[in-house]
Amino acid sequence: MIDIYSWATPNGHKVHIMMEECGYRLGKDWLAHPIDIGAGDQFTKEFLAISPNNKIPAMVDPNGPDGKPIALFESGAILLYLASKTGRFLPKTDRAKFEVLQWLMFQMGGVGPMLGQTHHFRIYAPEKVEYAINRYTNETRRLYGVMDKELSKKHFIAGKDYSIADIAIFPWTRSWKNQGITLEEFPNVLRWHEEIAERPAVKRGVEVLTSLRKPLNDDKAKEILYGKTQYQKR
Amino acid sequence: MIDIYSWATPNGHKVHIMMEECGYRLGKDWLAHPIDIGAGDQFTKEFLAISPNNKIPAMVDPNGPDGKPIALFESGAILLYLASKTGRFLPKTDRAKFEVLQWLMFQMGGVGPMLGQTHHFRIYAPEKVEYAINRYTNETRRLYGVMDKELSKKHFIAGKDYSIADIAIFPWTRSWKNQGITLEEFPNVLRWHEEIAERPAVKRGVEVLTSLRKPLNDDKAKEILYGKTQYQKR
Repeated sequence: MIDIYSWATPNGHKVHIMMEECGYRLGKDWLAHPIDIGAGDQFTKEFLAISPNNKIPAMVDPNGPDGKPIALFESGAILLYLASKTGRFLPKTDRAKFEVLQWLMFQMGGVGPMLGQTHHFRIYAPEKVEYAINRYTNETRRLYGVMDKELSKKHFIAGKDYSIADIAIFPWTRSWKNQGITLEEFPNVLRWHEEIAERPAVKRGVEVLTSLRKPLNDDKAKEILYGKTQYQKR
Repeated sequence: MIDIYSWATPNGHKVHIMMEECGYRLGKDWLAHPIDIGAGDQFTKEFLAISPNNKIPAMVDPNGPDGKPIALFESGAILLYLASKTGRFLPKTDRAKFEVLQWLMFQMGGVGPMLGQTHHFRIYAPEKVEYAINRYTNETRRLYGVMDKELSKKHFIAGKDYSIADIAIFPWTRSWKNQGITLEEFPNVLRWHEEIAERPAVKRGVEVLTSLRKPLNDDKAKEILYGKTQYQKR
């Protein structure tokens, strides 16, 4: 039984989708342990022990590569681990593999962190900071433009096959309403998004823990996520 | 001859250091092609063809995995490629390899993008945005705290051996003066930083293209980097 410690956010969805895509079934082959980041679960000693950066998602596989348990954090590393363990969604030949890795890194270094800032400044920040809203909304539109151009030439982001790069990017495009864009502006992204959204494993993955997530409108959750709590020494 | 298209920034330094660490010698085994991001070189058609996100660094290896040329972008993907090609700085056993990959992802998704925002709001942004300066300076201090704790337990960030995770993080810690912190606040990071800075390959790597880089104090460069130019459709 693989244990995923996570929450229903884009970075959490990546791993939930990957588990289901790899043929693991929730409750049978894996467990989703809720880490309610609005309640501060990410700061407990237990979670910190497997995720030293206090971020979701984290994973514990009791049957690691050498037969012993292994703990991992960072969604990108967990996707690579599961691809390696199951032989799925990462090509075997080096050329195709590095094509996927560069788009996975594009998600990890660009789409994720930058769209995260867009969400913060457009939706969650306690002040409306015009400069930052414009900066990150512009960057979001630029990143969608890059993806749209790629997806005009290829069926999936890194080639003809569905890969962990698609699984990493897809959850962020579900939150387009928080990003000051519409998917209709990017017809190739829209086509790609709609196809992935229909995959049965994706449908199951995005529902994992979703019923537990509450809208972030209380002051305590906002303090935990954006105030001093997160910066305390641990 | 491997061609690196890059600039003397933290993400550029990563690859320059890796080339030298892998035993390639500048001018003999590899070439550093300057992409002056203050002059807009990143927006040329030629560069876009190998780096569809218009970001440095990018690489062309005429002798790819199947003997044919391969082009790659994203510093994290290039580090993985060079580690695979040379068998250096990424462990062979899965357990140690995934330990490195999670800290590489921590750099790609956290240290790089967040310290990049810190540099922007503390140094380069045309307006002083107090909220954003505090947000990113606090996050910077938090990330250094995470690294300091890890480096109190391990010699390098992912274990006893120097790896691509160290190579990815190190260049960002050279710019601590732009980040509202001092390395003395983080004694284990300081110890680690000083040891890495003394490596001959690192000393050579950080000098690559550095003499070409001018301080970003002219309005044209600032417009290219932070104004509308970057958001034009390409």
